Amino acid sequence: MQKVAIIHGPNLNMLGIREPEIYGGTNLAALNNDLKKKAKEIDLELEIIQTNHEGEIVDFLQQNYKELSGIVINPGGLTHTSVVLRDALASVRLAVIEVHISNIYRREEYRKKSITAEAAVGLITGLGVYGYVLALEALKKILIKEKY
Amino acid sequence: MQKVAIIHGPNLNMLGIREPEIYGGTNLAALNNDLKKKAKEIDLELEIIQTNHEGEIVDFLQQNYKELSGIVINPGGLTHTSVVLRDALASVRLAVIEVHISNIYRREEYRKKSITAEAAVGLITGLGVYGYVLALEALKKILIKEKY
Amino acid sequence: MQKVAIIHGPNLNMLGIREPEIYGGTNLAALNNDLKKKAKEIDLELEIIQTNHEGEIVDFLQQNYKELSGIVINPGGLTHTSVVLRDALASVRLAVIEVHISNIYRREEYRKKSITAEAAVGLITGLGVYGYVLALEALKKILIKEKY
Amino acid sequence: MQKVAIIHGPNLNMLGIREPEIYGGTNLAALNNDLKKKAKEIDLELEIIQTNHEGEIVDFLQQNYKELSGIVINPGGLTHTSVVLRDALASVRLAVIEVHISNIYRREEYRKKSITAEAAVGLITGLGVYGYVLALEALKKILIKEKY
Amino acid sequence: MQKVAIIHGPNLNMLGIREPEIYGGTNLAALNNDLKKKAKEIDLELEIIQTNHEGEIVDFLQQNYKELSGIVINPGGLTHTSVVLRDALASVRLAVIEVHISNIYRREEYRKKSITAEAAVGLITGLGVYGYVLALEALKKILIKEKY
Amino acid sequence: MQKVAIIHGPNLNMLGIREPEIYGGTNLAALNNDLKKKAKEIDLELEIIQTNHEGEIVDFLQQNYKELSGIVINPGGLTHTSVVLRDALASVRLAVIEVHISNIYRREEYRKKSITAEAAVGLITGLGVYGYVLALEALKKILIKEKY
Amino acid sequence: MQKVAIIHGPNLNMLGIREPEIYGGTNLAALNNDLKKKAKEIDLELEIIQTNHEGEIVDFLQQNYKELSGIVINPGGLTHTSVVLRDALASVRLAVIEVHISNIYRREEYRKKSITAEAAVGLITGLGVYGYVLALEALKKILIKEKY
Amino acid sequence: MQKVAIIHGPNLNMLGIREPEIYGGTNLAALNNDLKKKAKEIDLELEIIQTNHEGEIVDFLQQNYKELSGIVINPGGLTHTSVVLRDALASVRLAVIEVHISNIYRREEYRKKSITAEAAVGLITGLGVYGYVLALEALKKILIKEKY
Amino acid sequence: MQKVAIIHGPNLNMLGIREPEIYGGTNLAALNNDLKKKAKEIDLELEIIQTNHEGEIVDFLQQNYKELSGIVINPGGLTHTSVVLRDALASVRLAVIEVHISNIYRREEYRKKSITAEAAVGLITGLGVYGYVLALEALKKILIKEKY
Amino acid sequence: MQKVAIIHGPNLNMLGIREPEIYGGTNLAALNNDLKKKAKEIDLELEIIQTNHEGEIVDFLQQNYKELSGIVINPGGLTHTSVVLRDALASVRLAVIEVHISNIYRREEYRKKSITAEAAVGLITGLGVYGYVLALEALKKILIKEKY
Amino acid sequence: MQKVAIIHGPNLNMLGIREPEIYGGTNLAALNNDLKKKAKEIDLELEIIQTNHEGEIVDFLQQNYKELSGIVINPGGLTHTSVVLRDALASVRLAVIEVHISNIYRREEYRKKSITAEAAVGLITGLGVYGYVLALEALKKILIKEKY
Amino acid sequence: MQKVAIIHGPNLNMLGIREPEIYGGTNLAALNNDLKKKAKEIDLELEIIQTNHEGEIVDFLQQNYKELSGIVINPGGLTHTSVVLRDALASVRLAVIEVHISNIYRREEYRKKSITAEAAVGLITGLGVYGYVLALEALKKILIKEKY
Repeated sequence: MQKVAIIHGPNLNMLGIREPEIYGGTNLAALNNDLKKKAKEIDLELEIIQTNHEGEIVDFLQQNYKELSGIVINPGGLTHTSVVLRDALASVRLAVIEVHISNIYRREEYRKKSITAEAAVGLITGLGVYGYVLALEALKKILIKEKY
Repeated sequence: MQKVAIIHGPNLNMLGIREPEIYGGTNLAALNNDLKKKAKEIDLELEIIQTNHEGEIVDFLQQNYKELSGIVINPGGLTHTSVVLRDALASVRLAVIEVHISNIYRREEYRKKSITAEAAVGLITGLGVYGYVLALEALKKILIKEKY
Repeated sequence: MQKVAIIHGPNLNMLGIREPEIYGGTNLAALNNDLKKKAKEIDLELEIIQTNHEGEIVDFLQQNYKELSGIVINPGGLTHTSVVLRDALASVRLAVIEVHISNIYRREEYRKKSITAEAAVGLITGLGVYGYVLALEALKKILIKEKY
Repeated sequence: MQKVAIIHGPNLNMLGIREPEIYGGTNLAALNNDLKKKAKEIDLELEIIQTNHEGEIVDFLQQNYKELSGIVINPGGLTHTSVVLRDALASVRLAVIEVHISNIYRREEYRKKSITAEAAVGLITGLGVYGYVLALEALKKILIKEKY
Repeated sequence: MQKVAIIHGPNLNMLGIREPEIYGGTNLAALNNDLKKKAKEIDLELEIIQTNHEGEIVDFLQQNYKELSGIVINPGGLTHTSVVLRDALASVRLAVIEVHISNIYRREEYRKKSITAEAAVGLITGLGVYGYVLALEALKKILIKEKY
Repeated sequence: MQKVAIIHGPNLNMLGIREPEIYGGTNLAALNNDLKKKAKEIDLELEIIQTNHEGEIVDFLQQNYKELSGIVINPGGLTHTSVVLRDALASVRLAVIEVHISNIYRREEYRKKSITAEAAVGLITGLGVYGYVLALEALKKILIKEKY
Repeated sequence: MQKVAIIHGPNLNMLGIREPEIYGGTNLAALNNDLKKKAKEIDLELEIIQTNHEGEIVDFLQQNYKELSGIVINPGGLTHTSVVLRDALASVRLAVIEVHISNIYRREEYRKKSITAEAAVGLITGLGVYGYVLALEALKKILIKEKY
Repeated sequence: MQKVAIIHGPNLNMLGIREPEIYGGTNLAALNNDLKKKAKEIDLELEIIQTNHEGEIVDFLQQNYKELSGIVINPGGLTHTSVVLRDALASVRLAVIEVHISNIYRREEYRKKSITAEAAVGLITGLGVYGYVLALEALKKILIKEKY
Repeated sequence: MQKVAIIHGPNLNMLGIREPEIYGGTNLAALNNDLKKKAKEIDLELEIIQTNHEGEIVDFLQQNYKELSGIVINPGGLTHTSVVLRDALASVRLAVIEVHISNIYRREEYRKKSITAEAAVGLITGLGVYGYVLALEALKKILIKEKY
Repeated sequence: MQKVAIIHGPNLNMLGIREPEIYGGTNLAALNNDLKKKAKEIDLELEIIQTNHEGEIVDFLQQNYKELSGIVINPGGLTHTSVVLRDALASVRLAVIEVHISNIYRREEYRKKSITAEAAVGLITGLGVYGYVLALEALKKILIKEKY
Repeated sequence: MQKVAIIHGPNLNMLGIREPEIYGGTNLAALNNDLKKKAKEIDLELEIIQTNHEGEIVDFLQQNYKELSGIVINPGGLTHTSVVLRDALASVRLAVIEVHISNIYRREEYRKKSITAEAAVGLITGLGVYGYVLALEALKKILIKEKY
Repeated sequence: MQKVAIIHGPNLNMLGIREPEIYGGTNLAALNNDLKKKAKEIDLELEIIQTNHEGEIVDFLQQNYKELSGIVINPGGLTHTSVVLRDALASVRLAVIEVHISNIYRREEYRKKSITAEAAVGLITGLGVYGYVLALEALKKILIKEKY
């Protein structure tokens, strides 16, 4: 079974607690449970991490990329600033899908650009935590090289 | 049954013909068939249009919004330039999901911003034509007001 | 009797329906009636059109400019983006007054500039639909070459 | 009877003298007379000042705002630079209409933005001194809360 | 005989009428006659259209590209703003030459950039309506793959 | 017979040698021969220079402008940076046509603007070395003040 | 006893009246009383002025700097625009502390820069009118050259 | 007793050692002692950390915010670059006061903006290490909801 | 005898006192004496004012321009910000020469542009207070319409 | 013997694995061996670290700077974004040489600036891993204060 | 007797010939004669050169700076673009005065900045060829270290 | 033996004379001697030129590139402005290493970018004249295609 990593970047452990008017009321544990269920349905193994440290995401990518077939990542605030993370994602040469819970086009000007998305296959933004589920589905499609 | 519009903007009728290295090899008719099948599965009625005219998208939105529950739109090149389309999308006050086939963050600088996405719930970019399928699923979730 | 065109650009047919907190509650038919009454009072003949198509405004200007003495135009979202409309207004060499219902200086950054106003005598913004009435009065003054 | 202030900013006392090819040939006294007549017609009391001092406009606003129902202001060159005047206008919370004699969109690049208009209901530009008359009419409408 | 399209964009039907100090005194019919004569001389078939609608240029390109060997286009004001037209030109993969009657480097700042020229082989600007004749000659050279 | 100068700016002596994928395979001597033939055909006398020195182009213009009727210039890299050359071209008050072999709109961002073209009648870019031939034809038209 | 000036710039006399949701409910007289009490406690003599005139602040600085040991200034809207005030503050070579009642980093983009702060020892922003009290304390520390 | 965190960001452990001409000669231990004394005086409990890791500040905030009533933070170089820290500060919804030892308006251009201050109540800059003492006083005022 | 005004803008009364390393050690009274002597030599009558108020310069210009033949002005910090002063200088239509004591090109970035110089014949900067003497000489030349 | 640190920033442990077309085929262990040999030759002691954590570089610098005589650093993606690292390098006041394997001037626009190089003696870019060897040689020269 | 160089940059040999509406009708020989007379009056020896070559100005400066006491230079179009000339002027460490015949603040945007003036004592612009005379006078003052 | 050119650009003949606080005290002759010695050691033949003329560098490159195996160039002020030199370096398709004596990242903003480095293999900056020695070593490595 192909293995996929879900990487929750800085502050995402505050999901459901922090600013629910922006990010919704689901908490991270519940979300992760749903993602595991979804993964099982579509026959993917999941490895899930959350960290507030840029360096730990990079370490994780380098230590695990050989076992991984794809990545779903929400880089949080690193999205808009981190060349380091962009380079790490590019270097592992895996299919990466970037997810944002809120619509980055409806927020501050500096959130409208993504440095990390340059190293991703694609990006899903504004569809709430459901964006992760969609990202898993898309990743599956890519991994099985189906028509789409 | 709730009705949803799929709006293909300028040049999308060239899908599968035009620059397949960027946009893939599926043609529009095949894509529309797949979307109809998907819609039936998730119990949505579809209305699909394609036009190269900004004004026709606006006319369509105004003439149909009362019968519609949501919109999936790929505004093509209008994405980056059209305040008119952004205003039309905002005025109908429906759930809108914007889709781009290629990853707009990996192309020319002027494609990295979306004016129309300010009037959308969210945006899916870079996941090929499969992005439309995901958009339909997300729209369904929004319309049935499920947890996500 | 001198003839004047009122040109309502994209989305203005949604007046009274769309975002009344920004554009007010009057609908377009009611506004047009009031403008006709006003025109009669100040001895002007009116030709009124609304269209969501940039090209149709240009066509209208070119087909009618010989019979027209002046133009009141609300270019909607085209205000901020259309060099084509700016050129069409400049080419007919008529007195043009641009009207915006809301105050463009109190909205998004990209609405603060007007490309089309470079081809107009003047601009009235933020005074609601009453801005059209004032524009008609100003046009009358210009046409009769009164002191002002 | 409701009282309205007409505030002529820096250099407007040179009207009719200074650069008539831009600002027209009417002088300030004549304009003020016309405005008084117009005000009487529409049942408004006028208080008119002209000053070249930013600080005097602010002092005037603060000392008189309790007796005033609205303001017509041509801030002259302060339009494009004065945060102080913008704040003063905002703080008195009156209906403010900004007037410019020439079309600010047809002049130097730095005249195309208005800082003070952010604190106004609306702006009239390019319609010559007649713009003041229109501003009075619009203010009257706002004060009597007529439909427009 | 190879067929080439001449596409006159928005406002070009006003040629000879509109702003002759910028665009010269030749009218469009006369120009088209000259172009037909020239085409015959160099053994090209011409299809000529003029439209004020962006969408109609895109429709024309898509409906005719299979019969065409090349395109001479003056996109008018769309030159500086239309990603849609740029994409349409790129998608048909024909030899495109862009023509401007006036020298875009001697006009407003926003006319100095061309979005559509990115999808063209080359651009001729400032040589009056004679620029179209030169474009036809250049296109002929490209089509017969002569040394140049 | 009217005399016209062809000025090849810096690096153009490397034509056919340098980066043929951008500039094509014709060398400068061959091009100059072709231009002389073309000139004879259309009854123009040619003076041709190539230099890598900005100052030598300026000297040449000042020493020869009295005998010249027009100029065809490819300023090479000076196009984007030289106010000196722009001023020299403007000061001799001759008809100048600027030529670029490659399409400057398809290259680096800093090649998209031309400082020198502000002092030219027009510009031809992207049509290979054939652009020089077209420039000669256009110059002839201007010199004989034909209709175009 | 060392003497310190408190300078309230334009619009600060409206404190407690103007936009209390931004600036709080304390009025200027009450604030000044509190500041006098505080000053007495920490053994400073106060001179307090408020003016809406840039020039009067400059005059005051020049006429009084010899008797002063330090300055607490809230330049209001001049903060963001006045090179004149910056130069005046720099020229008197006194310890200056700039105070803003609201947090300038949470307001309009143009309020995020301070020209006058370049001529100050430091700046306190967003701590309400209490910022003045803190500024007095800081000034005292500086004047008695205590460790901090 | 209410508890407040003092967070010293990257490089602040070098205080008194590093560039004393900019940051002064007090070392961090001495400063922390003074802050503890001050806190005791005004009846606040302190928790003090210093770290060079962005992620550790975020972890600390998330693990401790429930016990904290407020935060005094000097984010060091993160001030100007870290969206992650800004988001973490915003998410804990505590009263935050940002402190800088040197005046950020008198240093490099890129130090004049603060991303983190958008998530703070206010900011104190340029008053040396005494700025921390003032921040504690201000925080106390906010926590006891005194008039200021 | 022709009369010329010397206008010393904000902060120039601090000459010789303020920042002598930038502005030199001469004080304003001494400078004015020298200028009067110089004026007598070249047969000009002088009127000298210094003010820190933008409005007073404008008032002075409007009240005296009929008696004046020319103006030498050092607008101080208003140079870089005042559209009001630029307009006042333009409106009196006199020969204006702008003087700066220090070289504005060797100071802060925002001092490198002059808004007021657009309304002047010319500008002298960096030549110390001697720049005023040179300005008087140049003005004399202009007034007597000598060859230069 | 003088001791020098080699600091490999984020992602450099992927050397030889990641994007060899940009960074070459040497791996980090091999490079470090070569550097140790080189160091021995020129009589320097080496301490080598690699980390993906900004904070760990800062910690390392602070804990080791007393034993170090110089630093060779490749900050990876932190080069373009990290004020924290720039400050840490500046604070230890050692001779720092920055190295980049690829030529940062031939890559994305955001890689062309280096924030950290402001705190370095110099920078070597584009010379592959050999750049480290050169940096060691240069550091040796600086440490022995030879003529160069 | 002290020796001073007058350096006329590119295109200044066209003085009196080229664009007299901008640069006036005096030719260079006449100007140089006047400058020689002036120099004799104020006891300065002159060396005058004109060249269209940046490199020749640099060569001249390096070969002659030991015999020179000061420089008056009009760098023509190099003013706005040449770092090379700026560096050459700075390296000879002489008193340099930059002169422009027309007012650079009233021309194209790119002429408003001067790179070379950073290496000059001061600049005189807009005072016609008389600016050179004033520059000589100012240079004399500087050389005799008179009060000014 | 492979031959390499050392090209010293404008003003580098002033080395050791000009601004020694920036560029050091070694003069050009001494440096060239050292470089010759170094070259002999590593078995390279050197050709050294210095010129203040952009055009002469281009001429030199074109006349000698066939005999050369590589280039070490310090383009001086041309680094930041010359597209001509960048094109010349690119056209000869040799290994080019750019050297700057001072650290361009610690100087004026306009010195932080290099146009010419886009055409180089790499760049060494800030390591004094020793940078040239390192460049020779690096060039040797490249020419013998050693591992690095």
